[in-house]
Amino acid sequence: MNDHRPPPNDIATHLRAPRTRAALLVQQRILVAVRDTLLREGFVELSAPLVGPVTDPGVRGAKQADVDYYGTTYKIMTSAILYKQAALLSFDKIFSIAPNVRLEPPETASTGRHLVEFHQIDVEVADATAEGVMELAQTLVRAAVSSVLPDLAEELEGLGRDPAAFVELLGRPFDRVDHAAAVARVVEFGIDQRATAEISWPGERALSGKATAPFFITGYPKGSRGFYDRESTRRPGFLRNFDLLAPEGYGELASGGEREHEYQRIIARMRETGENPAKYGWYLDLVRDGIRPSAGFGIGLERLTRYLVGADEVWEVCAFPKLPGRVTR
Amino acid sequence: MNDHRPPPNDIATHLRAPRTRAALLVQQRILVAVRDTLLREGFVELSAPLVGPVTDPGVRGAKQADVDYYGTTYKIMTSAILYKQAALLSFDKIFSIAPNVRLEPPETASTGRHLVEFHQIDVEVADATAEGVMELAQTLVRAAVSSVLPDLAEELEGLGRDPAAFVELLGRPFDRVDHAAAVARVVEFGIDQRATAEISWPGERALSGKATAPFFITGYPKGSRGFYDRESTRRPGFLRNFDLLAPEGYGELASGGEREHEYQRIIARMRETGENPAKYGWYLDLVRDGIRPSAGFGIGLERLTRYLVGADEVWEVCAFPKLPGRVTR
Repeated sequence: MNDHRPPPNDIATHLRAPRTRAALLVQQRILVAVRDTLLREGFVELSAPLVGPVTDPGVRGAKQADVDYYGTTYKIMTSAILYKQAALLSFDKIFSIAPNVRLEPPETASTGRHLVEFHQIDVEVADATAEGVMELAQTLVRAAVSSVLPDLAEELEGLGRDPAAFVELLGRPFDRVDHAAAVARVVEFGIDQRATAEISWPGERALSGKATAPFFITGYPKGSRGFYDRESTRRPGFLRNFDLLAPEGYGELASGGEREHEYQRIIARMRETGENPAKYGWYLDLVRDGIRPSAGFGIGLERLTRYLVGADEVWEVCAFPKLPGRVTR
Repeated sequence: MNDHRPPPNDIATHLRAPRTRAALLVQQRILVAVRDTLLREGFVELSAPLVGPVTDPGVRGAKQADVDYYGTTYKIMTSAILYKQAALLSFDKIFSIAPNVRLEPPETASTGRHLVEFHQIDVEVADATAEGVMELAQTLVRAAVSSVLPDLAEELEGLGRDPAAFVELLGRPFDRVDHAAAVARVVEFGIDQRATAEISWPGERALSGKATAPFFITGYPKGSRGFYDRESTRRPGFLRNFDLLAPEGYGELASGGEREHEYQRIIARMRETGENPAKYGWYLDLVRDGIRPSAGFGIGLERLTRYLVGADEVWEVCAFPKLPGRVTR
């Protein structure tokens, strides 16, 4: 990865650049491949809400955007998680490809990995296990790569991306590393990392940088994630969840896991994570009435695109990028 | 159309209802048919921004939703129009299927036609005419119907929708009625209607109610629409624009037209429509630099779905409907 390069001030230069056009074509092809795969597997695509009284609190360090909604403060969705669980009352397998907004701290504008406005490919499956949906996430990433490589070979070449980068991705199952083992590796690299915490960016970058294909980190400790990731019954204190990391230092592509679905457990987990249950009116009413056990994940569309095209900066794959803290367009 | 029926208070009842499931399956099929058609015609799908310093002002009676964006007031997009014009710097033909928010007046909660959160199939074509994109809008509506009728015959039957409703739609080109002729018809019906104004809902309902297939109303007078609809050079005071109306009283499905693209004309039209050009910083910078002449339209996804399934109320085709003025979920 090179040093940070900000987007051009003038959007016309960005939109006209052949690199931008090539990246946007790759992104479109990713979406076509993902939709085709999910529809073939019997998923139903639904529209997730954009604003609501409450949204996903598990967005480390980022703030939620307040909206004046008929005199009440609503939030723009930071993820579709609450609505994905609800939507399983209609169908067994659902997905949604929708924008989210997270007001990331201004200092993340130069990480190359953060956009305020981004899109998630949000998938949820009733009665599924973490392992089952990890398999599905792998299938989707491979479908995207398999579609982009032959159809957009010229664009990839123009972007300087060597198709050889994806040989391993297509050739064997993605590795699955337990969080504890990942922490041990990070410490071996000489990077500070607490065993009970989210893996910090220096550690994530190092792990990602050594990898030659995407890989999963599984079983995060409870304190590191939101209330909705299900705690393991066999291994209390650890979650039935995962992140999917890209190789080459690109870092996180997706997050997912099994979900808490029992009322008392959700309340307990909310309390443990410092969330006030009173904020979650409609969601807890629904949970009390009964939601289904499920597992799912969200793939960051722009991050996946960035990895596929090999861009230094995630803003390069977005037509109208919004960098943290910058008030432009 | 029957009297207004509000959505059930509890979302689980709504999500589990076979009618809801059938409508959501139809909506998914519409999206597949529309995307397939546009991709086949060489369109590129782009992600439109969700929030920005300024958005489409031409939303009769509705308010824009304010967002606290790093201490500045941003707006949630009411339509993608400004970004669609910009995106033609990257590609000749683009589309975007994205959520919009319009804070419609609370009294519109009972019209059966208004949702605060809805989706538009937003299409824009460089160097196109109004007639050209009307043809395309017709192609998309027909593609949706042609796909839904055979694939979801059972769902339509469950919803009580007779496929015979679409024979004329599939059989002959959609009628095109000039705004002045439409006004004359409305007045014949004994409904008050000014010749220089937007056609009011009683008039629109009457026209739509008498129709047996979708039809276009073209050439609206200048005062009735936003600054971006291009004024006719041959017929000053009238716009090169159109609405697409459904039959059977369902009313408007889509709006579109040719766009103003010259800096001086856009400034003049902003002033005429009471918009302060100073608000439109990034957009006017771009226009000054040069944008392309274009034409396009936005189809209301939930309205199109409602018409296809024959629902009394637009909220019936939405998994998590938001009615104007109601603060729920």
